[in-house]
Amino acid sequence: MNGQQECKPLDEALAFIKANASFLVVSHVQPDGDAISSTVAVSWLLERLGKNVVLVNESELPSRLQYLYRFDRIHSLKQQKPEASFDAVIAVDCADHRRIGEVASMIPEGCPLLNIDHHPTNDGFGTVNLIRPDAAATVEILYDLIERAGLELDLDCATAIYTGLLTDTGGFRYSNTSPRVMEIAAKLLAIGVSGSDLADHLLEKMTVAKLKLLQMALARLAFSEDLKIGWLYIGKDDLKECGAVPEDLEGIVNYALNVDGVEVGILFKETADGGVKASLRSAGKADVAQIAQVFGGGGHVRASGCRLDGALTEAMSRLVEEVRKALV
Amino acid sequence: MNGQQECKPLDEALAFIKANASFLVVSHVQPDGDAISSTVAVSWLLERLGKNVVLVNESELPSRLQYLYRFDRIHSLKQQKPEASFDAVIAVDCADHRRIGEVASMIPEGCPLLNIDHHPTNDGFGTVNLIRPDAAATVEILYDLIERAGLELDLDCATAIYTGLLTDTGGFRYSNTSPRVMEIAAKLLAIGVSGSDLADHLLEKMTVAKLKLLQMALARLAFSEDLKIGWLYIGKDDLKECGAVPEDLEGIVNYALNVDGVEVGILFKETADGGVKASLRSAGKADVAQIAQVFGGGGHVRASGCRLDGALTEAMSRLVEEVRKALV
Repeated sequence: MNGQQECKPLDEALAFIKANASFLVVSHVQPDGDAISSTVAVSWLLERLGKNVVLVNESELPSRLQYLYRFDRIHSLKQQKPEASFDAVIAVDCADHRRIGEVASMIPEGCPLLNIDHHPTNDGFGTVNLIRPDAAATVEILYDLIERAGLELDLDCATAIYTGLLTDTGGFRYSNTSPRVMEIAAKLLAIGVSGSDLADHLLEKMTVAKLKLLQMALARLAFSEDLKIGWLYIGKDDLKECGAVPEDLEGIVNYALNVDGVEVGILFKETADGGVKASLRSAGKADVAQIAQVFGGGGHVRASGCRLDGALTEAMSRLVEEVRKALV
Repeated sequence: MNGQQECKPLDEALAFIKANASFLVVSHVQPDGDAISSTVAVSWLLERLGKNVVLVNESELPSRLQYLYRFDRIHSLKQQKPEASFDAVIAVDCADHRRIGEVASMIPEGCPLLNIDHHPTNDGFGTVNLIRPDAAATVEILYDLIERAGLELDLDCATAIYTGLLTDTGGFRYSNTSPRVMEIAAKLLAIGVSGSDLADHLLEKMTVAKLKLLQMALARLAFSEDLKIGWLYIGKDDLKECGAVPEDLEGIVNYALNVDGVEVGILFKETADGGVKASLRSAGKADVAQIAQVFGGGGHVRASGCRLDGALTEAMSRLVEEVRKALV
């Protein structure tokens, strides 16, 4: 990040910050680790620069992130809409304006907005845009921004940045784990971040409820005869029965996908209205976006989703049959 | 690794290598990722320096590592004892001479031996010793040795070193994941190592047999009423029934330990002779080495093991009762 060309967007972002005195910081609805970590890292930066800050998110905040700096200052619109006046907005980790959700209603028309994001699909909705699709996480961009501002990270901010890296790279396992990600991680660990505690807390631990759900799902894991398709299902009362919440479903489909030889893993969820939602994951050969489209769904080549009508068993065989055809 | 003091052991190791023309490279019995990766990385170094190399291990080689450079040149004594003549031995990742196992019988009395290892308990059994307990893995020491030799890593050797780092740090999750580990990982990725493919292959994928075993074990997961102790068991015919091998048991105890609030996780395995083996893991509060000692076992504060006589159910309640006492 030393080339003049690469520094220009950072300098523009810093100029935006310096030109204003008070900020609303917002991230996307149903925030993940990177969204919340980016929110608090921006708060840290703004505070260091003597700015006033109000942090707002539309959704419930994930309580597992409550160790983060300023976590308790993030207002959730699900609780209460805060009284806030501000000169400018900073949106982090939002690919487009709709991702801000209901918080948009707090933003006056024409209010200047700085858009900091790493999604390749970002539509540049800000007054100023700092978009770096090569970054594994929005916190990676914030690391560079803070460095460019000449500030020295403390443990609070370093922990937030490590959290965002860890969650957006699946614990340094996804293909976005670049040399730069590892270099930054090295520097954060040197500051004193306890990487192993964070990995344990965020990636290894689970609630009893989630474990019960996993138990239940695994007991039902089924495969096609050629072992190329694996699937699990969760009935409409199962979450309640396990005391689990919808986010506990996260990652369960991987138990089907990660079996040697499996090309497509599917998680079926019976919905309250009697339909079925399916999450599809591909090991690479099958384009699961195309398969989902057959049922009016969509997504990416390796991760997609769709809704199916009818009873669970019947819906399962319909989708599995479609996957089978795609794998021929 | 720039201080003169830190370079002296590296230079001594390089002098040892330069003084000899042909080498036997050996690692510990039942080799793990670091042991095999270190073996092939040393082979790479020796070849670059124009030496003759023979690679031998006592045990069956883990086939999931067969993508490694020179993997097919490692002789397993379980297959055949190779005809080999050599001037010197290099032992990697072995804390003491016994860890070499049966390969010791190939080494003539008085044969010079270079001992490269990261275990803090290493007893310095070599003629020359390069022991660095601060290293997360033996491959980390080899990275420094290769750098000190002035050689540039290629993709083959970089992949081996990344493999050792990945497996010995649990995918950059254990507390041995130092800033230095991440710096090296950054450089290896920059060389072109596919970190995500390796993580997927080594840490995410499992065989159908292992998954069946996990299914079976999870279905039996039980907790104490206060949810501080979690345990699972594997009966004496279960491995066979699942088509699983003993190494498939690896990691299963963590499903008990990693539940929120659990202080001690236990995996019970019924043995063929009618006894019971227990693996204990502690989240930190309980000293499971002490608990294991009550039954004549031992280990570390956070990971230990012991054998119990008698029937499974009875053995389980005896050990759980002992853990309960330790947690009061």
